[in-house]
Amino acid sequence: MRLAVIPGDGIGPEVVTEALKVLGEVAPSAEITNYDLGASRWHATGELLPESVLGELREHDAILLGAVGDPTVPSGILERGLLLRLRFELDHHVNLRPGRLYPGVRSPLADPGEIDLLVVREGTEGPYAGNGGLLRKDTENEIATEVSVNTAFGIRRVVADAFDRAEQRPRKHLTLVHKTNVLEHAGSLWSRIVEEVSLEHPDVTVAYSHVDAATIHLVTDPGRFDVIVTDNLFGDIITDLVAAVTGGIGLAASGNLDITRTNPSMFEPVHGSAPDIAGQNLADPTAAVLSMSLLLDHLGMPEAARRVEASVAFDLATRDQASPGNTQAIGDRLAALVSSNTSQVG
Amino acid sequence: MRLAVIPGDGIGPEVVTEALKVLGEVAPSAEITNYDLGASRWHATGELLPESVLGELREHDAILLGAVGDPTVPSGILERGLLLRLRFELDHHVNLRPGRLYPGVRSPLADPGEIDLLVVREGTEGPYAGNGGLLRKDTENEIATEVSVNTAFGIRRVVADAFDRAEQRPRKHLTLVHKTNVLEHAGSLWSRIVEEVSLEHPDVTVAYSHVDAATIHLVTDPGRFDVIVTDNLFGDIITDLVAAVTGGIGLAASGNLDITRTNPSMFEPVHGSAPDIAGQNLADPTAAVLSMSLLLDHLGMPEAARRVEASVAFDLATRDQASPGNTQAIGDRLAALVSSNTSQVG
Ligand SMILES: CC(C)[C@H](C(=O)O)[C@@H](O)C(=O)O
Ligand SMILES: CC(C)[C@H](C(=O)O)[C@@H](O)C(=O)O
Repeated sequence: MRLAVIPGDGIGPEVVTEALKVLGEVAPSAEITNYDLGASRWHATGELLPESVLGELREHDAILLGAVGDPTVPSGILERGLLLRLRFELDHHVNLRPGRLYPGVRSPLADPGEIDLLVVREGTEGPYAGNGGLLRKDTENEIATEVSVNTAFGIRRVVADAFDRAEQRPRKHLTLVHKTNVLEHAGSLWSRIVEEVSLEHPDVTVAYSHVDAATIHLVTDPGRFDVIVTDNLFGDIITDLVAAVTGGIGLAASGNLDITRTNPSMFEPVHGSAPDIAGQNLADPTAAVLSMSLLLDHLGMPEAARRVEASVAFDLATRDQASPGNTQAIGDRLAALVSSNTSQVG
Repeated sequence: MRLAVIPGDGIGPEVVTEALKVLGEVAPSAEITNYDLGASRWHATGELLPESVLGELREHDAILLGAVGDPTVPSGILERGLLLRLRFELDHHVNLRPGRLYPGVRSPLADPGEIDLLVVREGTEGPYAGNGGLLRKDTENEIATEVSVNTAFGIRRVVADAFDRAEQRPRKHLTLVHKTNVLEHAGSLWSRIVEEVSLEHPDVTVAYSHVDAATIHLVTDPGRFDVIVTDNLFGDIITDLVAAVTGGIGLAASGNLDITRTNPSMFEPVHGSAPDIAGQNLADPTAAVLSMSLLLDHLGMPEAARRVEASVAFDLATRDQASPGNTQAIGDRLAALVSSNTSQVG
């Protein structure tokens, strides 16, 4: 396994270190190359993602990204120039975000019930396409547009993947989240494709929820959801809410997948760079470790993936929630758990 | 006061009846005209909002709308052809949605704290502009676009209104909710205008939150928000979440305001037509009554507005939450409370 690692900014390097510690237990022979991208490189050289680096990244089996973003860099520069550019250049069309409330984890909901859902967010189009502009800038008559671009090709591949995943799950239920009553054209295309693809998956039950209503359900009855498939922006919004109700973005993992495997997929904790606690050994590396589990699964090591996830679940159920330990301590604990549960698999 | 009433579909007529009962206590001389719009008219005549009706509506001081939507009508027809058409034709640029957790009301949050916020949602542009289309429909190469249109004119007027409202509130705090790191152009215009307008309101403190992060804050620390100003779609999404954490859309009021007072403003409970419980005297009319309070305030009767809201607050604090009574009983109770607290004001 050739793994490219982008530690990135803020707490990124710290949580990545712990995720690699865990990887060492299940795949000690993995070949790891670090790439220095993010705020400090941009400050030093003005570079965000040089073509040569992008070329090298393409030669890997997968990418692990810590976090990107720093208060010293104007908002949007690193997000669009690095994070989104990677997602688009590497055709990460399936943005996978599981939402599971692990036993022992406190939800902000009074009565969360069981939550075990999976958001399959489109990753390469919609309002993220970057098609927009300004007209008559800095005048009273200025206009800004943002164009959501939705293609049958782009929607079909992510919807097909979502149905495949729903079929593997006990409940076999899929919910399309959109805003079809207002976004008539995009909504029509999404709805028609979900209907078409559903014909090939007669055992998957299908539901629809407007995105606004989905936010209500996610706080009043999150257990109703199994697989959610949705567009790039709605997916961005509801996955943060999903993370919140399942214990916070500190625990939320994600995978940016090219399911054709033409390009390496990229795995990242959702929490961001958290500059306020960076460099202090305070960040919880759990989300990075869970992202590693998604990585292992994607690379054809489902057994190793399950063991990493099971170790996290065990640790979450047994850790002192009030003081779970520092970054390293949690990483050490998870690595030990994985090693005790694992015959090496890679 | 000349009031146009659109009872609409589902539970709309029932909750409107109770809101008018309450209005009778504070403004018995109000002249009320009913307009039959919604699913049944569409079924009978194919009409959604005839020009002649729109013309008549314009002659009123305000509009009270019950609910629009019915399962027998394809999704989007009534929403776009009636509800959104009213908002756009009558230039309802300020969509006002208070989010208050009244004492006695149960939030799905374990520890909601005090919630008393106000979302000022733009109502006439953004992704709701209806600028989009389909290309190569029903082929493998189909493309759907949706264009978010944002004008300096449209943003400035809603931002100015939000600052005015923030200034009236004890905390004097305003949060812009957007997604500036991705929606670069619209985000830039919104941010610049908020900055500009803030110069005229030095006593209002200003914060910014990405929409995804805002959903997290709304379930983990909703008390941080005072006034939120945001675009049409983000406002749609977060106000449903706000409603959920403050006890549900059954209690959520809204006003669609033309703050220039060129056109009548329109007031509606957020809950929708709830066809499953329609006609059974089961719907809670509280949101319609709270919408009436917003109406009274907008029409220059702040004292009456406050008494209606105070009566609702008293009823919510004292009602049997498990069986608050049927539609009529709640309406009777609220009307009695208003009458006992109120010297007639209109
Ligand atoms: C940082 C930002 C560009 C990104 C997104 O909007 O996708 C983040 O919010 C996420 O969800 O991964
Ligand atoms: C019914 C729908 C068109 C409407 C909207 O999207 O604005 C509703 O969700 C609302 O929030 O009033």
